[in-house]
Amino acid sequence: MPKLVECIPNFSEGRNKEVVERIVDEVRRVEGVKLLDYSSDKDHNRSVVTFVGTPEAVKEAAFNACKKASELIDMRVHKGEHPRVGATDVIPFVPISEVTMQDCVEIAREVGKRIGEELNIPVYLYEEAATSPHRQNLADIRKGQYEGFFEKIKKPEWKPDFGPSEVNEKSGVTVVGARFPLVAFNVNLGTNDINIANNIAKVVRHIGGGLRYVKAIGVELKERNIVQVSMNLVNYEKTAIYRAFELVKVEAKRYGVPVIGSEIIGLVPLKALMDCAEYYLQIENFSLDQILEKKIFEF
Amino acid sequence: MPKLVECIPNFSEGRNKEVVERIVDEVRRVEGVKLLDYSSDKDHNRSVVTFVGTPEAVKEAAFNACKKASELIDMRVHKGEHPRVGATDVIPFVPISEVTMQDCVEIAREVGKRIGEELNIPVYLYEEAATSPHRQNLADIRKGQYEGFFEKIKKPEWKPDFGPSEVNEKSGVTVVGARFPLVAFNVNLGTNDINIANNIAKVVRHIGGGLRYVKAIGVELKERNIVQVSMNLVNYEKTAIYRAFELVKVEAKRYGVPVIGSEIIGLVPLKALMDCAEYYLQIENFSLDQILEKKIFEF
Repeated sequence: MPKLVECIPNFSEGRNKEVVERIVDEVRRVEGVKLLDYSSDKDHNRSVVTFVGTPEAVKEAAFNACKKASELIDMRVHKGEHPRVGATDVIPFVPISEVTMQDCVEIAREVGKRIGEELNIPVYLYEEAATSPHRQNLADIRKGQYEGFFEKIKKPEWKPDFGPSEVNEKSGVTVVGARFPLVAFNVNLGTNDINIANNIAKVVRHIGGGLRYVKAIGVELKERNIVQVSMNLVNYEKTAIYRAFELVKVEAKRYGVPVIGSEIIGLVPLKALMDCAEYYLQIENFSLDQILEKKIFEF
Repeated sequence: MPKLVECIPNFSEGRNKEVVERIVDEVRRVEGVKLLDYSSDKDHNRSVVTFVGTPEAVKEAAFNACKKASELIDMRVHKGEHPRVGATDVIPFVPISEVTMQDCVEIAREVGKRIGEELNIPVYLYEEAATSPHRQNLADIRKGQYEGFFEKIKKPEWKPDFGPSEVNEKSGVTVVGARFPLVAFNVNLGTNDINIANNIAKVVRHIGGGLRYVKAIGVELKERNIVQVSMNLVNYEKTAIYRAFELVKVEAKRYGVPVIGSEIIGLVPLKALMDCAEYYLQIENFSLDQILEKKIFEF
């Protein structure tokens, strides 16, 4: 099994297809990298690109895409609903196989340093690569957004980790880091009362005293006339999907509301779902090597 | 994704390592085939070989291994606890990807015909390849074993599908067929009363009025001082693992006995466990394409 790192950069352009394609081309043309997915959101005016590859190739592709974005995107005219601080807004590196989190932290530092020095863009390291606890959380770094950073960057606690100590007017600032694979998992409730979804979200999430690696909000699904608890599981090995699911069920009982379904958004690591099958079937001594496809395709 | 067929031939030799290796070598040396596993049981005096590959390559490897077994194994001196009818006892072909069950039935017929004509061994087609309902079940074909076949083969209803109408004294007869991937799934009960395991097995299995694609027996695990319901799920798409599991739980309640665990023996198709994760988490609209590894390794 090869060394594999995943990278999911977010760019502040979701409307101009040509610009998006030219950025994605920078990923496509690096050997040793496989483009898994990319999608643009017009309201957010933002694109998310997902690719995977060997550490060296992924570093190269991430830097080149960021460089291209700095040429083609102008933050001075960018508008969109999603919070953002730069042309390349955030670049997370994720360990997939035969690679440790520490390896990904190193990769984040190297790429961050290059972006700072070669592209003249202030860089903040976040999550596992953070150089200080107040920089761990992406939302905290992004607070104030591009527009607010011209002041924020002057504060000593927001001195960039790499690059100039002034905002790059055209490209803004970029956040680079290392994190675990994220599982986007939503639980649908048999009610249209958003207060119930919000209340459940508040107690199952980490900041509310809930599970260590769960972020959660209540969301209305107006078309279906129901609400959901929308969660990000930021470490599925330590906070398993089934545990979050069962805890939402437990809390929903307080309101006499049934859990009517769930959804997984985007990609999910095999192990995250296998852990659930193992838990519910009470399987003893299961190994992922027992999966036929893993044996055949040697991953 | 390539066309893939799995083949799991069983040979009547489990003690002489050299003989087993020479048979397995016939699989190893065919290009387009991947040997997944092989294991021998001394008490059964029997070996099971598992390989996968393109339809053409798998046909070639199965025939060559059967030919080698007909040269190296002599049924006239074979003794072992497991029921058996020939040097190559049974050859099932299993559709894995981009291949239909009907394709595997064709493969079974072709390989069966070659074994009959070129090796002069009577061949019976079984399961999905059977030419008559009374030949579907492997146990029915094997009844009487090698020794009994000298008489059995004379009955009109046991005329072989291919090959001579007399038993090959050295090689016996061979059963060839097509079937779905088999999942070996055992549920452990919190009791040492074998009658309870037997009673549950009897009602959850197909012949007792239970689930269509479940075979089951009660088994004692003496070391752990418990019993288990040992099941073969012969079509995991139509009788899901979770359904068999939940039905055993339902029946165990009658005896006030808890289900304390389960085990999956050997290889299991990814989808069989994903179906369980989907069921218990109530996931809506899940696609196997959302599995990160599937995307990366393109299987």
